[in-house]
Formats: sequence, structure tokens, C-alpha cells
Amino acid sequence: MTAPRVAGVGLTRFGKFPERTGRDLFAEAGLAALDDAGVPPDDIEALFYGNFMGELAEHQGHQAPLMAEAIGLDVPATRYEAACASSGAAVREAVVRLRSGEADAILVGGSERMTNIGTAGATDALSIAADDLYEIRAGMTFPGAYALMARSYFREYGGSRADLAHVAVKNHEHALPNETAQIRTEITVDDALESPMVADPLGLYDACPITDGASAVVLVSEEYAEREGLDAPVAISGTGQGGDRMALHDREYYARTPAADDAAAEAYEDAGVGPADVDVAEVHDCFTIAEVLALESLGLYEPGEAVTAARDGETHATGEMPTNLSGGLKAKGHPVGATGVAQVISIAKLLCGRSAWSDDLDDPQVGVAHNAGGTVASATVHVLEVTE
Amino acid sequence: MTAPRVAGVGLTRFGKFPERTGRDLFAEAGLAALDDAGVPPDDIEALFYGNFMGELAEHQGHQAPLMAEAIGLDVPATRYEAACASSGAAVREAVVRLRSGEADAILVGGSERMTNIGTAGATDALSIAADDLYEIRAGMTFPGAYALMARSYFREYGGSRADLAHVAVKNHEHALPNETAQIRTEITVDDALESPMVADPLGLYDACPITDGASAVVLVSEEYAEREGLDAPVAISGTGQGGDRMALHDREYYARTPAADDAAAEAYEDAGVGPADVDVAEVHDCFTIAEVLALESLGLYEPGEAVTAARDGETHATGEMPTNLSGGLKAKGHPVGATGVAQVISIAKLLCGRSAWSDDLDDPQVGVAHNAGGTVASATVHVLEVTE
Repeated sequence: MTAPRVAGVGLTRFGKFPERTGRDLFAEAGLAALDDAGVPPDDIEALFYGNFMGELAEHQGHQAPLMAEAIGLDVPATRYEAACASSGAAVREAVVRLRSGEADAILVGGSERMTNIGTAGATDALSIAADDLYEIRAGMTFPGAYALMARSYFREYGGSRADLAHVAVKNHEHALPNETAQIRTEITVDDALESPMVADPLGLYDACPITDGASAVVLVSEEYAEREGLDAPVAISGTGQGGDRMALHDREYYARTPAADDAAAEAYEDAGVGPADVDVAEVHDCFTIAEVLALESLGLYEPGEAVTAARDGETHATGEMPTNLSGGLKAKGHPVGATGVAQVISIAKLLCGRSAWSDDLDDPQVGVAHNAGGTVASATVHVLEVTE
Repeated sequence: MTAPRVAGVGLTRFGKFPERTGRDLFAEAGLAALDDAGVPPDDIEALFYGNFMGELAEHQGHQAPLMAEAIGLDVPATRYEAACASSGAAVREAVVRLRSGEADAILVGGSERMTNIGTAGATDALSIAADDLYEIRAGMTFPGAYALMARSYFREYGGSRADLAHVAVKNHEHALPNETAQIRTEITVDDALESPMVADPLGLYDACPITDGASAVVLVSEEYAEREGLDAPVAISGTGQGGDRMALHDREYYARTPAADDAAAEAYEDAGVGPADVDVAEVHDCFTIAEVLALESLGLYEPGEAVTAARDGETHATGEMPTNLSGGLKAKGHPVGATGVAQVISIAKLLCGRSAWSDDLDDPQVGVAHNAGGTVASATVHVLEVTE
């Protein structure tokens, strides 16, 4: 099996830009990725685009051709939607297409416009990633759902609000040198513990912010990269996807995320690597507890053991299992449809020495990106490796 | 290149069922397809699902895992969205995945719930397939947009409201024996011409109805079909997709649909056939003029010549180029996200003698399905062939 290459990457600043349209955001990221790749726009054969809430935030569906047009590409364009894993799903299918030999160069990206509809509007729009009939109408919110997952985890394995606070502190620190991150403010464990309670045990600093932003990568086939002599040392060597029941109440327990277990197992097998080979990870920390669950689904920690990883410094840039060096969703920000590709970008930059944290790492060779939708009813995992 | 097989098909009745949820509709279609295929549900590896307006009609995004769960499938599930070409896009990517060897059996389908939000609500939701900023806010509606395309066509090539009325009459007649069709009422050319004007030159009978419904197909790899000894004689031998500028005012002219030209050219080349080989077609007649434009994009008629095809009886079941024997979107109905797969089902049934119109056809071997999104800013074309 050949392994598609990451030829170029592009990101907007993540943050609060209510005046910027989705197409404005995506054009910036897409053009930056094309420029970074040095791939002629005419070689791009398709746009695989992730977006989650455009219907509600911008009264705009059918965004993929609009986004292709915004960057001057005359190509077929399809939107992928799997809630917060939308652009992870787009990456997955682009990898399949590229290694099938049916395409040589695909622009994959995503964008989300969220702050223009305010916090209440965004909270409502985010809620449609859960089961509207049986969860949302019963009063469920995402902070509430993840609070249930945290409570369940604590009961099953132990752990505390302070453990989770360390996740927040770490990811805020990681975001400090990230020029595109939304929140670049150091916080302390006390800051996190004293922040307003949102849904017990999760406080304000356990949650990622609401974010506008876009991301894009140019993915090319291995053959194309070689033929064109591209400087594209990072390959996507494994892809996996998992699904679960949509509503929490239809699952057996909340202290594990089986969809991500499945996605990780598939991606590792696909790449021919295992958790022990992973040098660096970007995981879907929409809430601090979600980082813990992700690390365990990825097999980087045994069940019940990831909750202390941040407190023990293991997931810090200088630790054994550096995680979310971009700042994660928590501090980098979470423009929903852009997140999956932004994670791939973070790993790709770490693997080729282009990250602000590169000097702190010891020649990383393998990274994983874990993207989740809803309460992990959808999950994608990608393994990235240095090929040279 | 191997050609995936259509192993089983399932459809709900299309019509006005405001009390039925999207998941209820899709479960019926999906279970029917699995039953028809005789493929064990455990063999299904993924759900590729098309939906367009769930966020607005049901306040429900992230529908794909919900739909998988509704039919008891524990598989990764992704939603494809390309406006009215959503499930066409899902079919396309499933074909790529199956012939890549990375999967053997995929459930592909779509559903749309529309009538529960009323005509004004559905009209608003449909509008987001166009450019919200520069078309919708300026007062553009889809009947208006297709009226511009019809006017442009008439000016360029000639044609009349009466020519289009014959398209409506034909498709209503074709729907009469279709048990899942929404409208099974014979009409005359005078009925069509005397129907209320919607957007000159298009009257009420030039437009498809607003529809609830779902569709599903089990697609399997050629290898799987042979290994399991499936009775699945129809293959999808070609796939193509095209894109165009979103807004009409950004295009050079309206009397052609270049995205569909591109999709058709790619699908024919992929299948190794040409327009002269096509025995039967299902095309995206959201308005009568759209059938005319589709027939020309598919190369079944020269530019300017398809407008008289229905009047001359050529596109009737008994004519040379039988088109929309299901009744088309016009009479079968158009539950947006379900339409692309419903077209594939119509062709598959015609090619294996399971259509009400089969007796009127002379052993058809090749069919095409043409699915379009918006004012054809997205288009997919699939070629289906009998393999035995």
C-alpha cells in the first residue's frame, strides 16, 4: 500500500472573527496550503471539505463548490460531515482515493464560522451533533454530556477535577508559541479549579472555546510526490474510522469511547505500527476529559491511567508522550469543521521540524491525529510518519 | 478496474409523511436494501449517507451514525453533502472505496424529511443550495434560477413552454405504475400549460414536488459478489463528478451545465462506453428544463436538440432514449438527500428486468444516472451495466 504525502499546509488564525465569512476563512487557508505545497493549482483534482454547522451559522449549505470557487479551483467538490470529525472524515476518504490510484492531488480542508451567531446560537448549533429527539430535547448539552463521561470515568477508575485542570494548564502552555492559536494565555491549576462551573465536574477551563477558522492540506499520492520531486517527507500511513450509538443513554458505559478504539486499531494496523511507536499525538480535547479518553482509546495509556498523565508531566512537550503541542482544541481553538485537518497539520509540522515545539522533541518519527464527533459517535484516527 | 455490483436496493414510498422522522424513513429503506441483497449485516463495513437539509428540517446534524444505529449497523458512518447531489456523491466515493480493495460491502443511501416544515420552510431550506450572500439575499429562488436557465436556453436554441410541458406529461405517465412514486396522476399538456405560473416560463407542473423519503443500496466489490455467489448482475462501471461556480451570475451562460458535462465525460471514459451505448437514463429533472439540460450534458442529444425530445416521444418508455421511467424527480418525488441513490435504484431495476416498464424495453444493457446539486454547481454521473 502506498502512503499519500502531506505536500502543503495552511491555517487561518483561529479566534473570534465574526466579520469573516466561511469562504473568506477557507480561501486564506486553502491558498496558503497550495502556496506551501508548491503544487500547481491545475494539478488539484478535487476538494474534500469538512463543515458542520454552516446551515445554522451562515444559512449556507452546499459549501464545497463555494469553497473551491473561493480559491479559484475548478474541481469537483464534496462536503464531508461527521460533526466535529468532519474534516477527519474528509482526510480519510482522500487517503483512500489517493492510494487507489484514482487521484494524484486533492485539497482537503474545512472551515467553520461560529462566533457570528453568539454563544447561545453556537451552543444550539453544536447540539445537533447529539440526538435532537432524545438528548437535546431532554435538556442535554455537550458540557453536560462530557460531564457525565467524566463522572463515569472517575467512578470507574478514579481521578479528580485537579487532574483535569492539569490538562487545561498544559494545553494552554503548549499554545503560547502557536501563532494561529485562539488562546495564548498561561493559566494555573488554581485558575482552572476556580473557573466558573459549567457542568459538574467540568468548569469553564475544562472546555474548548467557540472559534472561527479554517484549515487546508494538499495531499498527494506517493507517486506524484516522487515524480514531481516534492519536498514532502511526511506520509499519512494509516487511516481508521469508528462509529458508535449516537445517544449516551444507548451505550453500555461512558468511561470509554469504543468508536475511537476501533478507529485507532484500524489506523495502526493500516500503518503497521502500534501505540509504542507513537512519538507525538494530537487528540480531540473538546473537554479536558476527552483528552484522557482519547489517550486511552489510542492505546497510549491503559484504561484508567491517562487521567494523571498531564499532572505527571508525561503529555507535556518535554514528557514521554507529548500531546496536543498545538494547544489542542482547548487553547488552539475548535472551529469544528476545520479541526480534523488542523490536527493533521500540527502533527505534520512536528514531524518535519516546523513546529514551535520542535526543539523540545527528540526526532519524532510517528504521530497520530485523533478527531471525534459528538460524544464520540464518530471518530477518525490517522497515523503520520516521516518517510526520509 | 473492477466494477462494484448493486447487490440490493431499498426505497420508502416517496410523498408527504410529516410524521415520519428521518431515521424512521432511512431505517425502512436500509433494511429493505439489506434484505434484498441477502448480504449479512455483519459484512457491511461502512455507511455512506446523503442528506441535505437535516439541520434546518429536523434540527439534526451528524445524521450518519444515527442512521447506522437505526438499522442496527455498528459501522463507521459519514454524511456526504452536495445539495441535491448528496447521495450521488456518496455513491461515487463508495465506488472508489470498493474498487480500491479497501472495502467489500458498503451501504449507501440517503434520506430527507421536508414536508414537516411546510412549503415556506422547505423553500427556505432548499435555498441554501444556492449562494446565500449573493443570490438568496437578492431574492433568488430555485424556480427563479431555473426559469433564467430556461429563458437562456430558449433564446440560445429555441424551445417553448409547450415543449417543457411534454416533459412533465411524460414523467407523470412514467410514474403511474411506480408504487413508491409521490404523484401518480396523469396530466395533459394543457393541464401543465394552464397550471399556475411560478417563475415565467416555469409553471407549477414544471417543478418537482416537496418530498419525504429515503433510499438505500448495498454496493459490493466484484470480488465479494463472485466469492459469495450473489445474484447481482448490475455493475456500476463508471463514475464521474463535476463542479461549477455556485452563483448563476458568476457563469458565462446558463443554457448549458458544464459540471454535468464534466461528470458525464469522466463517467463514460471510466466505463469505456459513450452516449451511443446508453439504453436508458435517469436524470435530475427538478424542473422540466433540467431534464433537457441533463440530456444534453450526457451527450444523448446535441445542444439545443433535447428540448423537443419529450414532445417527439423519444424519451418516453417506448421511445429511442427512455428517460426517467421512474417518473423522475418530477413525479416520483425529490427527497433531496435520497435522490441520487434512488436514481441508481431505478436504473438497476430497469437493467435487471425489475421495473414496471421492463416489458417496454428491448433488453437494456447500459444506463446512466445523472444527479445535480443547486443550479448544477455539483453533478455526479454513474454508468450502470448488465454484466451477465
